[in-house]
Amino acid sequence: MARPPDNNRLPGEFDLIARYFKPLAANMPGALGLDDDVCTWAPALGEELVLTADALVAGIHFLPEDPADLVARKMLRVNLSDLAAKGARPVGYLMVTAFSPDVDEAWVATFCEGLAADQAEFGIGLMGGDTVATPGPLTLSLTAIGTVPAGKAPRRNGARPGDAVLVSGSIGDGALGLKVLRNEFPGLDETSRRYLTNRYHLPQPRVDLGRALMESGRVHAMMDVSDGLVADLAHIADASHVATTLRANAVPVSEAAAAILADDMTRLPLILTGGDDYELLLTASPDAVPDLLGIAAELDMRLTIVGEIAPGQGVTVVDRDGAALELASKGYRHF
Amino acid sequence: MARPPDNNRLPGEFDLIARYFKPLAANMPGALGLDDDVCTWAPALGEELVLTADALVAGIHFLPEDPADLVARKMLRVNLSDLAAKGARPVGYLMVTAFSPDVDEAWVATFCEGLAADQAEFGIGLMGGDTVATPGPLTLSLTAIGTVPAGKAPRRNGARPGDAVLVSGSIGDGALGLKVLRNEFPGLDETSRRYLTNRYHLPQPRVDLGRALMESGRVHAMMDVSDGLVADLAHIADASHVATTLRANAVPVSEAAAAILADDMTRLPLILTGGDDYELLLTASPDAVPDLLGIAAELDMRLTIVGEIAPGQGVTVVDRDGAALELASKGYRHF
Repeated sequence: MARPPDNNRLPGEFDLIARYFKPLAANMPGALGLDDDVCTWAPALGEELVLTADALVAGIHFLPEDPADLVARKMLRVNLSDLAAKGARPVGYLMVTAFSPDVDEAWVATFCEGLAADQAEFGIGLMGGDTVATPGPLTLSLTAIGTVPAGKAPRRNGARPGDAVLVSGSIGDGALGLKVLRNEFPGLDETSRRYLTNRYHLPQPRVDLGRALMESGRVHAMMDVSDGLVADLAHIADASHVATTLRANAVPVSEAAAAILADDMTRLPLILTGGDDYELLLTASPDAVPDLLGIAAELDMRLTIVGEIAPGQGVTVVDRDGAALELASKGYRHF
Repeated sequence: MARPPDNNRLPGEFDLIARYFKPLAANMPGALGLDDDVCTWAPALGEELVLTADALVAGIHFLPEDPADLVARKMLRVNLSDLAAKGARPVGYLMVTAFSPDVDEAWVATFCEGLAADQAEFGIGLMGGDTVATPGPLTLSLTAIGTVPAGKAPRRNGARPGDAVLVSGSIGDGALGLKVLRNEFPGLDETSRRYLTNRYHLPQPRVDLGRALMESGRVHAMMDVSDGLVADLAHIADASHVATTLRANAVPVSEAAAAILADDMTRLPLILTGGDDYELLLTASPDAVPDLLGIAAELDMRLTIVGEIAPGQGVTVVDRDGAALELASKGYRHF
């Protein structure tokens, strides 16, 4: 229809694709080097697809001044985390980029270096996409594709009364990392600052752990923690038609987060509700817990019991004495 | 990170999804009513996936005042056309919506009515996606998924010297329809106006024809005409490392387009290069042509021979006397 807005900081669309995007599709034979309108691909026999999509808008989901390679890698990792929570092996992705007038070739080059780095790290490839120009903010959207043995992906809706609630790794680092970037903890030591900002910029999708947990066949419900631990546990409770209790003092935190909490316990809600964790949140029968902890230990990962599932509905967050904390209110999600 | 811009014309994200998007996923069991982060799905044995993605930005790819249901249907159909050109049976789509501040609930409701209408018409369903807010223009992106017998999808790169070049339906209607909407042909009769604007707003992806042509096993290269007949034929020639001649007078046009041409032959370049046709463009051995014409006729469709493939490179457009027309210059693509 109308021609896109001129952007003389970028090469033409075809040059851009040839120079930066085609190399990213080199390991996807069905993408034909992006020389076709489509990519063809088939899962192995007995496997089914796991599909997820996400959008990122500059100024909302990332800062325009964020390093382009980290934007790329976080975009991929956030989606790989969704796949990991279903036990899926990641395969590849389709990417749509709407470039704003301020994007120049150097930004695209660095962005694609980030994609290439994580493609190598996670064994995935670019399967297709579209590149357009927008007068608005830079907008990225991604469809990620993985595979899982048919019917074996743990869903949100399988939690059962009596289940233990477990979470991987440590919670709150991503949300604290963003605060560090905004210079809200000026007294924090440099090691903690680097650790937390890295956790914010470069989440670690728990691909191997998610796969192993799925393969155990003992996980009742699983998802990744992205909206915040309390909100995501509510998603599991709602989808499963059960109630859940989260023990705030059991929630695993990193040394850096512990140091911040030691300074000021009123930061606890941020940890429980801040989001950007990309850890696995799951429920399983208490009988299965020792096996699951063993599976995690073999991968040098930590799983921690943080609560229980019961009949009823909703999330109750309790302190060490079992008294309900007023954390479950939606207001905390806007921290 | 930052909260999205307020939009008090829209319900909250979860309400919006529940009210408008969940019903669109009802026929996709693996989408679990959009209550999970992912959709699971498997192709039938012996089939492989065909994947394609597109982005649409308001003001560039459609007009903000275009009817929302037509925006939705065109978005789907443009992608279904890519699948059709590979002989794929459409299955479903993931959709990412970035809503601008001017989008209200009525717009979303009408948009989703359009999606529902075409889901029913083409037997597809919503498999997932993401909904965000943007301070920029409304931005839509779609990943469409289809299936085809493994290894059977015709690609762009299979054209061989000696092949005939064929095109389905009529060419130029979409580009002329846009001009009608811009009131550039004030003298045109009402029937032609309606026909052409409908062709612009509501392209007909040639799903059944593409499937039947693929099944014949006699198509060497196929793609849909979206950038313009000359540009897309150049894509086939480039990918196949061959040359091609397009006979301008052989290009099939509708009665409405013929009337416009009769008035002013200088509009021919617009027809040959305007794009937005969503017809099938294919090459096959001359031996196969009678069979292919028969396949089309059985579906009440028309295929027309418009040119030939030869050794060499590039597209030559010739007039009825065989003299080269200066149409192949890239300038015409900017009409």
